[in-house]
Amino acid sequence: MPYLPAWFQSVHHDGSDAFVSNPYPRLGDTVQIRLRTGLDAPIRRIFVRTEPDGEQAITPMTPDGAAPPARWWQAELPIDQPLVHYRFLLEADDGLWWLNAAGPGDFDPLDGADFKLLADYDAPTWLHSSVFYQIFPDRFANGDPSNDPQPHEYEYRGYGPQTFPWGTLPPDDYPFPLVFFGGDLQGIAQHLDYVEQLGVNALYLNPVFTAPSNHKYDVIDYQHVDPHFGGDEALVALRQALDGRGMRYLLDIVPNHCGYWHPWFQTARADAAAPEAAFFTFSEHPEKYAAWLGVWTLPKLNYTSAELRRRVYGADDAVFRRWLQAPFAADGWRVDVANMLGRQGANQLGVEVARGIRQAVKQARADAYLLGENFFDASAQLQGDQFDGVMNYGGFTRPLRHWLQGFSQGAWGMSERITSAHPYPTEALVAGWQSRLAAIPWAVALQQFNLLASHDTERIQTQVKGNEALHRLAAAVLLTFPGVPSLYYGDEIGLSDRAELGSRGCMVWDERRWNRELLDFYRTLISLRRRSAALQRGGFQILAAEPDSFVFQRAAEAERVLVLAHRGQQPRPAGPLPVAHGGIPDGTRFVELWSGAEATVAHGALPLPEQPQGVTVWMSVTSNE
Amino acid sequence: MPYLPAWFQSVHHDGSDAFVSNPYPRLGDTVQIRLRTGLDAPIRRIFVRTEPDGEQAITPMTPDGAAPPARWWQAELPIDQPLVHYRFLLEADDGLWWLNAAGPGDFDPLDGADFKLLADYDAPTWLHSSVFYQIFPDRFANGDPSNDPQPHEYEYRGYGPQTFPWGTLPPDDYPFPLVFFGGDLQGIAQHLDYVEQLGVNALYLNPVFTAPSNHKYDVIDYQHVDPHFGGDEALVALRQALDGRGMRYLLDIVPNHCGYWHPWFQTARADAAAPEAAFFTFSEHPEKYAAWLGVWTLPKLNYTSAELRRRVYGADDAVFRRWLQAPFAADGWRVDVANMLGRQGANQLGVEVARGIRQAVKQARADAYLLGENFFDASAQLQGDQFDGVMNYGGFTRPLRHWLQGFSQGAWGMSERITSAHPYPTEALVAGWQSRLAAIPWAVALQQFNLLASHDTERIQTQVKGNEALHRLAAAVLLTFPGVPSLYYGDEIGLSDRAELGSRGCMVWDERRWNRELLDFYRTLISLRRRSAALQRGGFQILAAEPDSFVFQRAAEAERVLVLAHRGQQPRPAGPLPVAHGGIPDGTRFVELWSGAEATVAHGALPLPEQPQGVTVWMSVTSNE
Repeated sequence: MPYLPAWFQSVHHDGSDAFVSNPYPRLGDTVQIRLRTGLDAPIRRIFVRTEPDGEQAITPMTPDGAAPPARWWQAELPIDQPLVHYRFLLEADDGLWWLNAAGPGDFDPLDGADFKLLADYDAPTWLHSSVFYQIFPDRFANGDPSNDPQPHEYEYRGYGPQTFPWGTLPPDDYPFPLVFFGGDLQGIAQHLDYVEQLGVNALYLNPVFTAPSNHKYDVIDYQHVDPHFGGDEALVALRQALDGRGMRYLLDIVPNHCGYWHPWFQTARADAAAPEAAFFTFSEHPEKYAAWLGVWTLPKLNYTSAELRRRVYGADDAVFRRWLQAPFAADGWRVDVANMLGRQGANQLGVEVARGIRQAVKQARADAYLLGENFFDASAQLQGDQFDGVMNYGGFTRPLRHWLQGFSQGAWGMSERITSAHPYPTEALVAGWQSRLAAIPWAVALQQFNLLASHDTERIQTQVKGNEALHRLAAAVLLTFPGVPSLYYGDEIGLSDRAELGSRGCMVWDERRWNRELLDFYRTLISLRRRSAALQRGGFQILAAEPDSFVFQRAAEAERVLVLAHRGQQPRPAGPLPVAHGGIPDGTRFVELWSGAEATVAHGALPLPEQPQGVTVWMSVTSNE
Repeated sequence: MPYLPAWFQSVHHDGSDAFVSNPYPRLGDTVQIRLRTGLDAPIRRIFVRTEPDGEQAITPMTPDGAAPPARWWQAELPIDQPLVHYRFLLEADDGLWWLNAAGPGDFDPLDGADFKLLADYDAPTWLHSSVFYQIFPDRFANGDPSNDPQPHEYEYRGYGPQTFPWGTLPPDDYPFPLVFFGGDLQGIAQHLDYVEQLGVNALYLNPVFTAPSNHKYDVIDYQHVDPHFGGDEALVALRQALDGRGMRYLLDIVPNHCGYWHPWFQTARADAAAPEAAFFTFSEHPEKYAAWLGVWTLPKLNYTSAELRRRVYGADDAVFRRWLQAPFAADGWRVDVANMLGRQGANQLGVEVARGIRQAVKQARADAYLLGENFFDASAQLQGDQFDGVMNYGGFTRPLRHWLQGFSQGAWGMSERITSAHPYPTEALVAGWQSRLAAIPWAVALQQFNLLASHDTERIQTQVKGNEALHRLAAAVLLTFPGVPSLYYGDEIGLSDRAELGSRGCMVWDERRWNRELLDFYRTLISLRRRSAALQRGGFQILAAEPDSFVFQRAAEAERVLVLAHRGQQPRPAGPLPVAHGGIPDGTRFVELWSGAEATVAHGALPLPEQPQGVTVWMSVTSNE
């Protein structure tokens, strides 16, 4: 491991306004970039290293003034290609150092973790001020019992659908996908007061297109909202209701596969010569075909078919385009299993398909949000030409979860989980976060969809085994981390997983069963997030990584927010926290969000009180306040 | 930086035979992979983490026997996509650890440094046993004085070409590109005895196509060898002469730009409606046009033109195809400025053009070597779908040069070089090498074109300021490092840079002026390389990184080679070198290549004698020898 001098902690750059004059440049623009160092760092010269059209260019930075505890450097960066990447080279008394978005080092790093700016990028900047709320429609609220699924309506795997009384548990032996509770879009529309009072201003709806299962990832009609959710009219009505409150919504789509009973697949099975036969991959027609992870109800779509590409995204009335248009006017798409989309052994069309979808979506609506599901390393899909963001399990959720609960990883076909006998190191948490942030442009990092839980995971309350201090810690980190925060319905009132339903239990509308303190905690955080420029698009810097604690700073303009998370059962002792390397001057006064405690920076450190397990959020206050 | 337990040094995997059962699998195959750990490493379980079609899969490894000091683990790896990438997850008593090709870590790393296997890959495996010799044709040998360039033949920048007496220095004020010494292909053919006795078996020729300058990167005819180099017939004759000795050769081509006087450009200038006008990028016809780094004699080729793509690589008789066919039958191409090829601001066609060239080249000859010039991070071009290798300045040469001479970096428009006041850390050397190796498939790493010097750099003798111990050190590392070694003509006899000619001085044929000891040193090394499976395709592991020394192991089957490089002016003290973490059992006997000294591993360490500045190479001997 390289020796790194202590002064290097004071060197910082990220994509935020203090460091980049224009985060959304056009091709041909020049952007001013700045670097911050400690006032007394033994630096002789600093250079910006770029690679216009593949050829290295090295430009000296110019000193740009000093304001204790920081000194600034600046350079002009020509935006001469769609993705401009750069890193810094520091000539110092004690050696030669490189800085990229992953951090400092003593050797010339690879380009992957360079700082990155996108030219002519169609950014959905409305995301900055958005806080999402994810709803699994069958389980949120039953607005119209007359559309509840009934056993006689259809048969699926030998069973009919059945609607159980709200909040009950179905019999253990009833097939999971056919368990309904009657939730629908009308139910959502009826509870928008609740949602708005929570403070969120955007919804992410799990799939609503017609499908036999409750989760509707086995779609049989991409053109219509399932009648059990209220049909197309209910979506139009929901759109109008959201408009009245200035709220947005995302639809969820599965272009990777469709349901077995989709007419495309039925036609393909019936007639090997039909155009639809080429939408799928039959190893033996009609019985053997490629399916998502081998699940027979979910035949994989084969994007070598030009006609499929046309219907899904290419044509003027293609699925990806039509729902973004009036009267549905969705604000974007969440794309299921984007990691597998278009990929089948020898045919690796993932990049082409994602780019085609992006083009269609942005033509329909330049500020639409194109969000992919990718649990793994999605950085190749996040360079500006494919997805605007992904559900950020890899870059946010999983490292935090490991840190709170210890490492745990399940795997297909294994009975035992992989675990560690030791606490997950704070260094590993920080490196996991930083490496993911470093792999993508800052503009994209601000669009990453951060979450603590979803329909595919345990609820956060279950993850932390009911430890509310850790739940609050996680929630505060979610609402203060770079990217778009999303709450999973019911987490805010403390719902836990329910037996076979897992995280897909029914929302509780009996307020007596709510954890009102937790709800208030969420509301306070969401409110802060909605009004704080620092949290929405401010820079990000880890200021401390201790065995059981970490501190990060978000900063924009004159506003700074420090988040101190402590997982230890024993309190973190009171004492001064060094903050000068965060560029925070002496005399800066902070107030804590919940307790109202105050502290002022002196001698480069912030004197903090003892902190029990949990989280504190420290906001700078200007002297006039 | 993460805490890593000491036992982790013993954990090793790479792409060599001991660890991968088949380095060149077909799609659909299954490959057995193995991992080596220390016998007593506190490991509970080990898993292989893969991502078939983008979805994570985790497979437990099976214990596969123990042979002190090592224990082995194995797993089956399905080759289910063109590029299979994998990493390891180790569940140990002291924590949970990841291992990828960049090394161990305590958090789940990004995919970029995963181990990688290519399916259905057209590998030029003849490279494994090749040692190259780079020749700048005008400066190697004048075989036919009748074809020497004469001042009256053409005019270029207001001067005619002039042929100066061999080995002299031209007047300072004579334009560099028009200084000729009369070297030609006949001269090369006449000196093949010398080349063969040196031990090399492949030539890389700087450009030979017709062009007015001595370097011929300003080509005016891609279809013919320059008459001053002997024309097409001389190349055919050279091919035949090489065939008689079992030798190969590479041609050098510039598809990024052509010369100002190329008929394509002259036609484009004369007629804005000609098809050739679209081969270039005029901002103002005919005077303002895009050129390589703005040099007006080198207009940039614009690959948005389908007709250009056709002529350069698409058509049956395209340039990239025809020279690989009889009677020229080149064994591959060295592609100039491959880093910039096809890239122009908004139009970033680098990937498409490189893939198109690859397809053409491999159709013409599946085992042709497609070598790119890329001084920087070329890993995106080295994933099996573009180049077989690049001139490995970034992954081999530059880190070694920094380590030997201290960091030094020039840049356009800067008068002073960027330097460090401190020695380049051995850790930085090792990390620089390892990060580049880790970014590409092992099969490609074995094809990287390693070099100490070229027509674009200082000669190695000049780099080390005449320090022959360091020259030898560099040469030994070159010939033992993973990848294809290439010597630059004359380095083997100790040539230095010559005034304005730089590294392009004339080869010296007066043997009295040769450094014969150095030549013998090179011959010994090349001979070892040519017969050693360990050096050609053996694994690679850094065994020690000390402030002024490093040791690496190459190992294949029963053969091991240890290379100990020491840059310090004071000798490295005698003493035992730990080697058990290299899987080397006690009792293994080593003999040093030059001194014949012997040493035998005991208690996990190899007792080494004092080593002065320079290099020693220790080869294992089997007990029967």
